[in-house]
Amino acid sequence: MARQERAVRTRRTIVEAAGAVFDEHGYAATTIAMVLERAEVTKGALYFHFPSKESLAQAVLDEQLSLGDVPPHPCKLQEIVDMTFVFGHRLRSNALLKGSVRLTLDQCAPPGVDHSGPFRQWSDRVVEMLQDARDQGELLPTVQLRDTADLLVGAFSGVQLMSRALHGREDLGHRISVLWAHLLPSIAVPGLLSGLDSRPDRGTRVLASAESGELVGAEA
Amino acid sequence: MARQERAVRTRRTIVEAAGAVFDEHGYAATTIAMVLERAEVTKGALYFHFPSKESLAQAVLDEQLSLGDVPPHPCKLQEIVDMTFVFGHRLRSNALLKGSVRLTLDQCAPPGVDHSGPFRQWSDRVVEMLQDARDQGELLPTVQLRDTADLLVGAFSGVQLMSRALHGREDLGHRISVLWAHLLPSIAVPGLLSGLDSRPDRGTRVLASAESGELVGAEA
Repeated sequence: MARQERAVRTRRTIVEAAGAVFDEHGYAATTIAMVLERAEVTKGALYFHFPSKESLAQAVLDEQLSLGDVPPHPCKLQEIVDMTFVFGHRLRSNALLKGSVRLTLDQCAPPGVDHSGPFRQWSDRVVEMLQDARDQGELLPTVQLRDTADLLVGAFSGVQLMSRALHGREDLGHRISVLWAHLLPSIAVPGLLSGLDSRPDRGTRVLASAESGELVGAEA
Repeated sequence: MARQERAVRTRRTIVEAAGAVFDEHGYAATTIAMVLERAEVTKGALYFHFPSKESLAQAVLDEQLSLGDVPPHPCKLQEIVDMTFVFGHRLRSNALLKGSVRLTLDQCAPPGVDHSGPFRQWSDRVVEMLQDARDQGELLPTVQLRDTADLLVGAFSGVQLMSRALHGREDLGHRISVLWAHLLPSIAVPGLLSGLDSRPDRGTRVLASAESGELVGAEA
């Protein structure tokens, strides 16, 4: 059991190191030697978990969705909003997430790595959440779930990319807030709009309250 | 004079070849030899115009904005909408533009190349166009020009990136149309909404009419 725990921990250490190296250097320029040096594990341990650079990249990509997890909220649209702010917040500090997003968005598609997988997975998750929102009467009847989900995922990707390129993601909270200010009136029923919280520091507040076990802005 | 014309044409040939190679291979993996082979010009001609790979990348980036040019429209919001559709249309066939966009969005930032320049230049151009739209009474009073311009540029970038990753940009017209369906109600005064054309094939129609010298959808 202790051995298994150690293996899990070692694997995690390697994935985090790989994420950081992919973030800094991109897929093509990254070598296994660089990941080894960053992770400070033995070559044997690394190859035991990951036989190739492709498998390292896939593991980093596979982590992405779990890093968008947020506490459930009675209002499902608020939960979607929260997810974007929390993801944006983590994107500023979590090297594994940065590396995963870089692998998704850089146009290098090494054979054997499904680098566009996160696009599809995010869209599927948002469709599910929008369906819950629809069932609760939160959405305008004009909303087409897949179109709106794809738009949210695509627009978010570009907004964070531009924020990274121009401001090192310093203004990402503000930009996500601007995104929602423009989109929500086309998505939410009018009665819900004033109760939704999409202020720039929403991510910080959601994470703080998740730690303390409280719910923020449960107006729904 | 003839010699100057030849030089201009040769330079253009090289820039287009470089765009295609950057699009296919990304900045890091591209070599000058690959561009030489694609352009079918002499080494001397290439180095006369471009002393380095960085200067080739910069030239490809510098072409990007001109590829968003559209015929003027009496309704400035329609002109902004047209610009996104025409840009999207060209992005499906123009290798130079594809390469330029890849250089902007890939996270490789080689020293000496201002790869995020297009983000700033697009935002500046959209701010100017939104200012004209405001002067003509087309915008809701809540619109903050820079915020909305940055959102348009960022969201468009991500939408086209996701379309490329999932569908080789086949559905880009549809996705741009969805983007505008969600954004316009937060930007345009209500009286303008029904007259704006943001159907998926808008780019094709604008380009066709530009060739024939006619104006499409001049409802404004």
